[in-house]
Amino acid sequence: MKKDKVSSAVIRRLPRYYRHLNDLYLAGVERISSNALGKSMGLTASQIRQDLSCFGGFGQQGYGYNIENLRGEISDILGMNRGHNAVILGAGNLGRALMENFHFERSGVALSAAFDVAPDVVGQRLSGVPVHHVDQLEEYLGQHPASIGVLTVPRSVANRIAGRLVASGVKGIWNFTNIELTVDAPDIVIENVHFADSLLALSYMISEVP
Amino acid sequence: MKKDKVSSAVIRRLPRYYRHLNDLYLAGVERISSNALGKSMGLTASQIRQDLSCFGGFGQQGYGYNIENLRGEISDILGMNRGHNAVILGAGNLGRALMENFHFERSGVALSAAFDVAPDVVGQRLSGVPVHHVDQLEEYLGQHPASIGVLTVPRSVANRIAGRLVASGVKGIWNFTNIELTVDAPDIVIENVHFADSLLALSYMISEVP
Repeated sequence: MKKDKVSSAVIRRLPRYYRHLNDLYLAGVERISSNALGKSMGLTASQIRQDLSCFGGFGQQGYGYNIENLRGEISDILGMNRGHNAVILGAGNLGRALMENFHFERSGVALSAAFDVAPDVVGQRLSGVPVHHVDQLEEYLGQHPASIGVLTVPRSVANRIAGRLVASGVKGIWNFTNIELTVDAPDIVIENVHFADSLLALSYMISEVP
Repeated sequence: MKKDKVSSAVIRRLPRYYRHLNDLYLAGVERISSNALGKSMGLTASQIRQDLSCFGGFGQQGYGYNIENLRGEISDILGMNRGHNAVILGAGNLGRALMENFHFERSGVALSAAFDVAPDVVGQRLSGVPVHHVDQLEEYLGQHPASIGVLTVPRSVANRIAGRLVASGVKGIWNFTNIELTVDAPDIVIENVHFADSLLALSYMISEVP
């Protein structure tokens, strides 16, 4: 698999492919043409064939895509079977909202612990996740390695905490802090959650309506 | 402006254009070539020229794009100058996180009120936003029309509240509930926030690292 040639635009579409295919799979659909898949995703059939050809194809002329197979392949490509572990830094409003409502396991990620400094949450469990003091971060990650750090701390400490996560072996940071992290480590992956992109797309679409 | 011909893929890229152009603008950069802009966004120069041609171009051969102009044009296209008002339904963890940390005004949206049922928040102000009882939703929106409803309520009431928002004249719902809303109104725009797409892109990128 030649992942190094995959553009970031294709990477961005892969989770959407997975989501659409998973919905179809759960609805009991067995196969779909690139035309129909494209229509449901707002892409052209040729775009879809081109995207999936980055990973070696999967479709058959005249048959389309077998949904269960393609869903499985994309799940593998996305690393959903790699056993990624995550810790969450910051058990404030956003951290708690993620712990309560977001299904990490559906993305193949196990959320093992949270870290905060507030005495009223340290030592508690929130939605089943133990909350430790952030002073214990290095010790915890030494014993329970994690590949993903979810960053929901205040901006003022974001870069400091990000640096500690990286020093403790985390490979990727899921950054909800709305600041550009300046982490001095070439291999670290930073995924910023841009709420504004979503709100602006909504703004565009309602501004179209007469 | 022929908005009706714009594909959803282009719509998704518009906020990213705005974000990148805004960063460049704030950094004092005056112009950029489609090559350089493409490189920073993971797109090809021809893709960028094609996207922006949907709205009539803006670039000049041999000069590139004037950043302030293009940023302004895209801001207009995104409806950031339409004076959109929003109300937030649900002042729980996620609702509070948005009120505290998300800058609605930077997307051209004014957040005017929040609604909840919990006695400890109704009547309070959270991050300067007044919280009303959800029973007052229709009366409030009758007096203070809003075009956007931000939905952070529990799943069990999501569709009911969405229906009430639509009946009160809201044009778009920013849906954080992780359920597919079934709103019986053809013109309503529903923008779902898919945290999982972002986490899966991160999973992909860290699974690449050897």
